[in-house]
Amino acid sequence: MFQFEEIGYVESCYKERFGTPRQAILVPSSWGIIHLRPELNLQDGLEGLEGFSHLWVIFVFHQNTNKNIKMKVHPPRMQGEKTGVFATRSPHRPNPIGLSAVKIEKIEGLKIFISGVDLVDGTPVLDIKPYIAEADSLSETRSGWLPSPAAHRLEVEFAPEALLDLQRLRPIPQHEPERFLQLMQLIRGTLQLDPRPTFYKGTNEQPNPYTNVYGFCLENLNIVYRMEGQTALVIKLEETGK
Amino acid sequence: MFQFEEIGYVESCYKERFGTPRQAILVPSSWGIIHLRPELNLQDGLEGLEGFSHLWVIFVFHQNTNKNIKMKVHPPRMQGEKTGVFATRSPHRPNPIGLSAVKIEKIEGLKIFISGVDLVDGTPVLDIKPYIAEADSLSETRSGWLPSPAAHRLEVEFAPEALLDLQRLRPIPQHEPERFLQLMQLIRGTLQLDPRPTFYKGTNEQPNPYTNVYGFCLENLNIVYRMEGQTALVIKLEETGK
Repeated sequence: MFQFEEIGYVESCYKERFGTPRQAILVPSSWGIIHLRPELNLQDGLEGLEGFSHLWVIFVFHQNTNKNIKMKVHPPRMQGEKTGVFATRSPHRPNPIGLSAVKIEKIEGLKIFISGVDLVDGTPVLDIKPYIAEADSLSETRSGWLPSPAAHRLEVEFAPEALLDLQRLRPIPQHEPERFLQLMQLIRGTLQLDPRPTFYKGTNEQPNPYTNVYGFCLENLNIVYRMEGQTALVIKLEETGK
Repeated sequence: MFQFEEIGYVESCYKERFGTPRQAILVPSSWGIIHLRPELNLQDGLEGLEGFSHLWVIFVFHQNTNKNIKMKVHPPRMQGEKTGVFATRSPHRPNPIGLSAVKIEKIEGLKIFISGVDLVDGTPVLDIKPYIAEADSLSETRSGWLPSPAAHRLEVEFAPEALLDLQRLRPIPQHEPERFLQLMQLIRGTLQLDPRPTFYKGTNEQPNPYTNVYGFCLENLNIVYRMEGQTALVIKLEETGK
């Protein structure tokens, strides 16, 4: 048995598992902050890290509720087929340890600002390591059952009411108008990946009383969208109140 | 606190820390076998993994003897300078968790044969994950203080006596003559990386009674070599008896 204490936790634009990308880097406008624990006196350990563009985060899948680990899983991109858990990055694995490469935006004190995250808010961090291309960025790799990522991107559109909601809830900042665009890109990038559970994809199942209507949480907004064929139409935005 | 049980351990050509490459992939002829623990019934979890070319190994640096973790470390390639531990892949970190991408050679039952390893024999494995290029193989990265790897490769030569030792200890197999060449490549690849501690590099310090003579363990052989400028001259091979 090995015991590890978390060195910090992640604050993330993704407040719940649903909607969180299943790989890092896929949504460049997604953001997070790694907060290292002040009581561990880790400050000097960050020296030199700002010279690196990317970071490995080794973390715990803390939102796993199912304690019964199965050796075969249904990866979202496998259209209902099963494969061995060690041939996937599924969170439901014998040791619920996760691994993500993210981009370093800036470092301030014990806060590491990152982007391209697939980490849920509150994720405990076990270790961070610099991304070293010579050892980590491999070419001529083969990725088994995984389909090409481009094949699965959805179209994303905003209904006029949703744009009005967005402008009301997050007024365009006078000095940082690009913040508004970033939020739209974050919604778009997240939905392009089709966060629906595999079960619903390509079926007529109704996850809630409204036909084909789904919602997910981003920052403090609830994003409501309707699936129309291969297009996700954002129809409403509301504050979550959290 | 998080508790994890190892899912298996690594059998490796590197029997001790000295000589073990500091990054994976650097010595393609280095080999290892991940043995998953039979009592955990993980067999079905490996299904589909053979379709991937590379694997992440998340492991424990079990040979750390120094329990006093420092926030600044001396990475071997930094020529005596210090930097923050989180800007390095040093084993001496708050949570002694390691991360290596290795090549999958073949899978037989609960054994995963790998190459390009930087793992010491006996390393406990916490998790294995497929290498997925779309998320893991990043381009346009920046690697802080790290010098170009090519700059530090040593020349490696074999003295005639060492070649005789090698032929005596590991006779050229009639049906697999390439095994002999592989072992030479493994020795060469390992020495090219200059496994000496930073402390000795470029100095006249004498680590043992013979001037500039070093030894390291590979498979069950002790490889003795002498540094002559930027050339490592292999002068003797002997069985370790382990």
